[in-house]
Amino acid sequence: MSELNAQRVWDYLDGLAKPRRSLGRLEALAVRLALTQRSLKPVVWPRRLVIFAGDHGVVARGVSAWPSDITALMVGTMLMGRASSSALAAAHDCGVRLVDVGVASGKPQSPPAFYRDARVAAGTRDLSVEAAMTPAQFDAAWQVGVDEAERAFGEGHRVLIAGEMGIGNTTPAACLTMLLANVAAETAVGRGAGLDDATLTKKRELIAAAVARVRKFMTGRTAIEALAGFEIVAMAGYFAMGARLGATLLLDGYVATSAALIAEHLQPGVAKAMIAAHYSAEPGHSAALSHLGLEPLLDWGMRLGEGTGALVALPLLDSAAALLRDVAALSELGVPRGD
Amino acid sequence: MSELNAQRVWDYLDGLAKPRRSLGRLEALAVRLALTQRSLKPVVWPRRLVIFAGDHGVVARGVSAWPSDITALMVGTMLMGRASSSALAAAHDCGVRLVDVGVASGKPQSPPAFYRDARVAAGTRDLSVEAAMTPAQFDAAWQVGVDEAERAFGEGHRVLIAGEMGIGNTTPAACLTMLLANVAAETAVGRGAGLDDATLTKKRELIAAAVARVRKFMTGRTAIEALAGFEIVAMAGYFAMGARLGATLLLDGYVATSAALIAEHLQPGVAKAMIAAHYSAEPGHSAALSHLGLEPLLDWGMRLGEGTGALVALPLLDSAAALLRDVAALSELGVPRGD
Repeated sequence: MSELNAQRVWDYLDGLAKPRRSLGRLEALAVRLALTQRSLKPVVWPRRLVIFAGDHGVVARGVSAWPSDITALMVGTMLMGRASSSALAAAHDCGVRLVDVGVASGKPQSPPAFYRDARVAAGTRDLSVEAAMTPAQFDAAWQVGVDEAERAFGEGHRVLIAGEMGIGNTTPAACLTMLLANVAAETAVGRGAGLDDATLTKKRELIAAAVARVRKFMTGRTAIEALAGFEIVAMAGYFAMGARLGATLLLDGYVATSAALIAEHLQPGVAKAMIAAHYSAEPGHSAALSHLGLEPLLDWGMRLGEGTGALVALPLLDSAAALLRDVAALSELGVPRGD
Repeated sequence: MSELNAQRVWDYLDGLAKPRRSLGRLEALAVRLALTQRSLKPVVWPRRLVIFAGDHGVVARGVSAWPSDITALMVGTMLMGRASSSALAAAHDCGVRLVDVGVASGKPQSPPAFYRDARVAAGTRDLSVEAAMTPAQFDAAWQVGVDEAERAFGEGHRVLIAGEMGIGNTTPAACLTMLLANVAAETAVGRGAGLDDATLTKKRELIAAAVARVRKFMTGRTAIEALAGFEIVAMAGYFAMGARLGATLLLDGYVATSAALIAEHLQPGVAKAMIAAHYSAEPGHSAALSHLGLEPLLDWGMRLGEGTGALVALPLLDSAAALLRDVAALSELGVPRGD
């Protein structure tokens, strides 16, 4: 099947028992989905969401509407199965794993089996004054994501979603989007989970200064280490390995997309395995997606993270897969093709 | 719960463990869904698609890219579970019934239990020269839909979808949209399942003349009888009874929406029970939805019918219901509300 191309998928769809091209964008999605798995019968069950959690030293500068403690609180809510991502994953039969790559607060007592303690450090350092992580920490976080992709694929999952929980992580996401997608601070920096005007201005200035400093002295992976977060680097490793294994990567919002930018930068071609779920309300997201050549399925102004946007879009992939898998061909019905 | 209003649903959502309004349109959908069932915990399982099938005398005038025989062929494909609607319904765990309200060709041999023979006549008469149906036929078709809604609701379904199969039925749909939503022929008449330019021009002229003739001599229900189809009237009865019972009506494309226009015309308020799934590629659909005060969930250029657009959008309701049902309140976590 290695020679599967878009034309061959369109040709298959045009031979099904329906007016030609009458399912509009669903057919375009079916083509994309088939290409990500290099198969006319892409597999969407089982599927997995891995939520990577981490904290950010830069939060001490007041760039977030919430304190870092909320990261651990929300991790606890996910462990109870009561977060937004838990509800949506259950609704769409998506397995969840929750991986602590760098939360700053205490670890959960006797957590459930879907929790993994892979903490690289208790949060990154403050990217506004020093490198967020060391090269060794980058390697460790990346490897956590690689392990998760291998595990998911090994357990039969062909649709992989990365979610994140990390108070303040739209700040590293904006830095990375500026760095890797050549976006200006005015576009890259948004209100995250709810900033007022004064804090937004402060956040924008801090990010512009950090990116300028890094650009002056660093390039490539070193620049990424200076600005990223542990959960973001883990997502990048997860994407890179997921793509290499042949899985479909369903991409969530702004922070997940900043990880996709890292993955594509370090392993060009990863974006070919991706389907973008939605345009986030964060203003830089659209530019980051364009840089990756992706056009999202939904434009619903979602900005929660945790993989929620991808979970809302996930059943659209189920529809596309069902179209390819279960609809009769005109030839089976003895009807000539209309094209 | 009869006093449930939008403010109360928003207030509930704003108290959940997530940044306020961070799920964008999903939250607006949750509000709408809750209001249609007058419950903060709307029910989305089990759900049912009823496909109403019928033929149209006007097809003899060459307004369709396909002959009427295709209606029965596609009914047969649905009975085999191999149509686009079959595939999508199975993917999203939606039960299907298939009701013949007026197919012109022979009936299926030993059909499965989800098929119902409720044929009013073997197709409507040609609406371009006479009334498409008699008042008694209108009553019979309407009652078929009423029965189906009562049956679905009685079996526990709270989300009802109507689909249709009827070669040529964008012609009565366009007539009804002109008649009931005051849309001009240029807007109301589209290519249906795939017309060339010459046939589109002929279809538009035929429809404009038919609507002009009806408007000159008839009003209200009599005008509707003159222009409708059996499957369209059955869908209208299904919507009217579904709304009365308190179900959520998930509205498919152009033909289903023309039935919604009938239902709203004859039983004002029915549209309050509706959620529009998508903007069809048919140009008149958007105007018809505006007339009903509905804004669709997707704009994917779908134009197949059979309920397929509603089935693609159905899991978005599942996401909205899960948000209302399963996410922890901030008060449960001991966290003050952010608003």
